Amino acid sequence: MVDILHRTGFENTSTEKVYEALTTLDGLRGWWTGDTTGKTDLHDVIAFRFPDGGFDMKITELAPGRRVEWEVVGGTPEWIGTKVHWDLKQDGDWAILLFKHEGWREPVEFMHHCSSKWGTFLISLKHFVETGKGEPAPNDVKTDNW
Amino acid sequence: MVDILHRTGFENTSTEKVYEALTTLDGLRGWWTGDTTGKTDLHDVIAFRFPDGGFDMKITELAPGRRVEWEVVGGTPEWIGTKVHWDLKQDGDWAILLFKHEGWREPVEFMHHCSSKWGTFLISLKHFVETGKGEPAPNDVKTDNW
Repeated sequence: MVDILHRTGFENTSTEKVYEALTTLDGLRGWWTGDTTGKTDLHDVIAFRFPDGGFDMKITELAPGRRVEWEVVGGTPEWIGTKVHWDLKQDGDWAILLFKHEGWREPVEFMHHCSSKWGTFLISLKHFVETGKGEPAPNDVKTDNW
Repeated sequence: MVDILHRTGFENTSTEKVYEALTTLDGLRGWWTGDTTGKTDLHDVIAFRFPDGGFDMKITELAPGRRVEWEVVGGTPEWIGTKVHWDLKQDGDWAILLFKHEGWREPVEFMHHCSSKWGTFLISLKHFVETGKGEPAPNDVKTDNW
């Protein structure tokens, strides 16, 4: 098993504000993809759609201001059954996000790509939370030729 | 052992052009850090400096247009002895870079941070190669409170 890891800091931000961007449709539409639908309570499924496909995430943990966990229940085969962890902590004026996408069976080329794309979307999340304006799909940074 | 993985595509670009940005001082200064010194032949050491520290990289492999490998011989303890692999391939009009920073002993919080920072610097590399203008340190995206 291999994991994708990231860490992002949000200046002058509370963990509650980052949590809101991860747990509401308006928040998620502001930094990951504009085409986000579904419900956002525990055990609900959120559908994220992109120009070339998408993912369905079942919400498996919600701890306000501290932690969100999703299980991938729909999308590309490599993602099915993997989990996405969002851990938040406050460090003075900064909210700190530790991100983990775990459960990849092999470090395939697509995993390299997803690591980079999560990186760009986490910068989009940072911009959205700090300034109100992110770069969600389809206005994201294109780094692939697929 | 855990690895940091990334994949970046460069549109209308040859692998030779990306290779040049990875193997010349002017190239490296254009996307990673403006404070880059040393020599760039096989077995030489390049010194990369940032406002809060830096890394010394020994060049352990150079295959023009295909592959570069560095071994970290100076810097923060977590990096010493780790290796950075840059693998290039041509796919039509696209140059594709597969990046791996391998040999981390533990998935510490600093590793999460470095994964995200490599992500932003690879976007800087993409901009530098595609447009001639990257965002090297000290003009990089600040994502940490350290």
